[in-house]
Amino acid sequence: MNKMPLIGLGLATIGASGKTLDVFFPLIAFAGGDLESSNLYNSWNQLMDDNILEIQDVEALNIEDKTTLSALQSLNSNIKLILCRIQEDITIQSIEEAYLKLHLISYKFFQPNTLNLDNLFNTLPNVAWTNNGPIELESINHSILESKRAHRSLEIKSIDKFPRLTDYIVPPGVRIADTSRVRLGAYLSEGTTVMHEGFVNFNAGTLGAAMIEGRISAGVIVGKNSDLGGGSSTMGTLSGGNKVKISVGENSLLGANAGLGIPLGNNCIVEAGLYLTGGSKVEVFDRDMVSQGVVKADQLSNQDNLLFIRNSLSGAVEARINLKSVELNDALHKNQ
Amino acid sequence: MNKMPLIGLGLATIGASGKTLDVFFPLIAFAGGDLESSNLYNSWNQLMDDNILEIQDVEALNIEDKTTLSALQSLNSNIKLILCRIQEDITIQSIEEAYLKLHLISYKFFQPNTLNLDNLFNTLPNVAWTNNGPIELESINHSILESKRAHRSLEIKSIDKFPRLTDYIVPPGVRIADTSRVRLGAYLSEGTTVMHEGFVNFNAGTLGAAMIEGRISAGVIVGKNSDLGGGSSTMGTLSGGNKVKISVGENSLLGANAGLGIPLGNNCIVEAGLYLTGGSKVEVFDRDMVSQGVVKADQLSNQDNLLFIRNSLSGAVEARINLKSVELNDALHKNQ
Amino acid sequence: MNKMPLIGLGLATIGASGKTLDVFFPLIAFAGGDLESSNLYNSWNQLMDDNILEIQDVEALNIEDKTTLSALQSLNSNIKLILCRIQEDITIQSIEEAYLKLHLISYKFFQPNTLNLDNLFNTLPNVAWTNNGPIELESINHSILESKRAHRSLEIKSIDKFPRLTDYIVPPGVRIADTSRVRLGAYLSEGTTVMHEGFVNFNAGTLGAAMIEGRISAGVIVGKNSDLGGGSSTMGTLSGGNKVKISVGENSLLGANAGLGIPLGNNCIVEAGLYLTGGSKVEVFDRDMVSQGVVKADQLSNQDNLLFIRNSLSGAVEARINLKSVELNDALHKNQ
Repeated sequence: MNKMPLIGLGLATIGASGKTLDVFFPLIAFAGGDLESSNLYNSWNQLMDDNILEIQDVEALNIEDKTTLSALQSLNSNIKLILCRIQEDITIQSIEEAYLKLHLISYKFFQPNTLNLDNLFNTLPNVAWTNNGPIELESINHSILESKRAHRSLEIKSIDKFPRLTDYIVPPGVRIADTSRVRLGAYLSEGTTVMHEGFVNFNAGTLGAAMIEGRISAGVIVGKNSDLGGGSSTMGTLSGGNKVKISVGENSLLGANAGLGIPLGNNCIVEAGLYLTGGSKVEVFDRDMVSQGVVKADQLSNQDNLLFIRNSLSGAVEARINLKSVELNDALHKNQ
Repeated sequence: MNKMPLIGLGLATIGASGKTLDVFFPLIAFAGGDLESSNLYNSWNQLMDDNILEIQDVEALNIEDKTTLSALQSLNSNIKLILCRIQEDITIQSIEEAYLKLHLISYKFFQPNTLNLDNLFNTLPNVAWTNNGPIELESINHSILESKRAHRSLEIKSIDKFPRLTDYIVPPGVRIADTSRVRLGAYLSEGTTVMHEGFVNFNAGTLGAAMIEGRISAGVIVGKNSDLGGGSSTMGTLSGGNKVKISVGENSLLGANAGLGIPLGNNCIVEAGLYLTGGSKVEVFDRDMVSQGVVKADQLSNQDNLLFIRNSLSGAVEARINLKSVELNDALHKNQ
Repeated sequence: MNKMPLIGLGLATIGASGKTLDVFFPLIAFAGGDLESSNLYNSWNQLMDDNILEIQDVEALNIEDKTTLSALQSLNSNIKLILCRIQEDITIQSIEEAYLKLHLISYKFFQPNTLNLDNLFNTLPNVAWTNNGPIELESINHSILESKRAHRSLEIKSIDKFPRLTDYIVPPGVRIADTSRVRLGAYLSEGTTVMHEGFVNFNAGTLGAAMIEGRISAGVIVGKNSDLGGGSSTMGTLSGGNKVKISVGENSLLGANAGLGIPLGNNCIVEAGLYLTGGSKVEVFDRDMVSQGVVKADQLSNQDNLLFIRNSLSGAVEARINLKSVELNDALHKNQ
């Protein structure tokens, strides 16, 4: 199914100066979706000359679900109702489209790395995320003074271009111990637990149940039944110079405080504390622990059943055959 | 003193569907406690046929302290007052009992690993912890829409089975730089500081003043005057396959970004950045730096006065005699 | 320009027992500042017999700016308006002076390590930082009970001597993904991004645009265009026994999960996962990869163009000539 074109129905927060600070899309209609979805798409599409349209009258939207409909009425004065259409997957043109694409990933309509996110950083404004919603940075220091004087609460939780996922979407069947560590645009599959030390960037996530106690950088995906140990690191492509998209296969374990600079296969283990970069030279052993010579780690990309360790006597990084299988603790993953 | 049987007086939060989301126990009475406590126990015990009882009339509780008594009156409509009795330390039967056992540890009535916590994960529901208290996950996405529309604040801080400690109990004489990183069920002794990068799971904690800038996994205990450096890791037994309960003795230091997979003795140091697993082969040296041969790290469990380093020239992990003593910075630990 | 003497205009929060919990300084006047500032200084200075003065009448302050003036009127009953004067940079005498010095650093009037902060820990009280502002710890457990009963929100975010920066000051041109990880007293230059895993202590920070995904300990400064990778650690001098002030030069990269125990020069890289302590023995290589012998890492302090790695075959720590230059991703640093 080709998932574009599509139209999102959004609630945009408008800042004091009139600019849009964020957009929440509770509903998305697909031209190629089921009957209800495609009917909605067609109905909305007829209203639109441009790809973004402000809606003045909720009734024009033809929404049948009474609960949703009533939730869209009597909006607060700083909230605008909009439609945002994406006809094809090109460079991002607007903040509305940027937010819509982040929603598309977090709703799991599109997997990480399958949408064109060029221009994302330029279209997203830097915003103060507070207990009173997003506010503009321009007069923030005066707002702090005002709140102190009056002993009203102004809590600035984040100053960032990206908000947290759970201010918009709570994916089913997940646990997120500290929601400040998962950005909108994260892709979290059912059965995933993100512990306090875990982190998931936008355009990144898990393809099945997984235990995430380490950091999933932008662009990184983790397969089902895998475990990122506490404080473990996956190399991203946004900074630090790495060009290769990192991933973790299924049934694999990145140990605590370990790091990963190659795409890791299935049923692999990287030992706790070992940072395996693409350029690390690794001595490879067969099942009988006979050396097969030395290769760069990136030559072992996506190979299954490997155990990477640093020999604690010789200090050399080794790839051995992984004889254990990684098992997630079932009780930890029943996220009801 | 055998501390059971006991009865906790709890305030249970009831979700929209009627199920219990959490229980806060401000008061616990012990049959074998002091006169006041045992009188209270006996009085409450007479009211109970089952181990859980809903209290309709606060006066029936015979609470003499006026402040506590008045705090229990005119409860909000989603709060129920209950008694929960634990007669012997068996497998957890209910959410009330689960919360009571977590309180027992955080009040420091019981040390970590001394209570039967079997069935804990199954009895705790997954809950959205918000600025409006715990709420059920079932209709959470609709609640987000409602809050956005009306520009009312709904902050989902955590989606988890475990709440944060300080929503229930603030232990005396501690600092916790970021309370989202200490779960209910943590055991924090006076003089303990948990820095921003520190973390303390349930059924885990410190037995004396300690500086915690690393992660204390479930089941792990840290002795007095010890220091977990920034980002350091202690292996837990819940996931990752480790079976041995890890601990840190007194006057010991786990360096920044280091890791520990054995029970560490007193006056020991694990060098910054070294992950010592139970299976690490370690060359042991005596006080004159004469090699005593190679052993697995777990054979050095609980031995005192050891310095673990990775020789920066040979790459080998070594255990030397620790000639320094670890000293905590006193000023940092005056937590008044 | 000698920046002292100076006087800060502060809003002090007074706790239930009457003691001062924190002070927010929206305005600071310098005797040696520009005309407006020095006029203000002189005007305030005439009012003061002691270094701290409570202001009863806002009009006496001669503040011309109407917005600021009006923000200082009708203060909440637990807020006191004060002046705090620092004539010379001596040991901290009071909580007011402690907060003023932390503001001086975060406003970037003084760089880290240029102010006398002796006695800081003793003058700062341990406070519960909540959604209702700072509150005293003495009756905190009763406050929790009260809030639960009435289903009013009491969120204790931190129990600490130091508050978070953004409750007082939002520096221009920065992103701080999780504000709970930057303390008041941090020095953040324009173009700095502190990611979720970043941390900046008081009296520490960045001298130019920088990407901070690791931990900047107290006393540590990072030069412009440098990058602290995810989970990286800089050794502080407050605990752990280190005496040398750590710093990172310009255009340098501390890799993910790496650590630094020496002052690092310009255009240097510490490989991901390597913890370089001052005592690490390091084999030094020239541009042609000819060994120049072994030195302790602290002998390489502040030297430029070095690449520190652990040889993945021999396990030895090596210092090579860094042939790459570190480049920050521009799009990530446009913090508008």
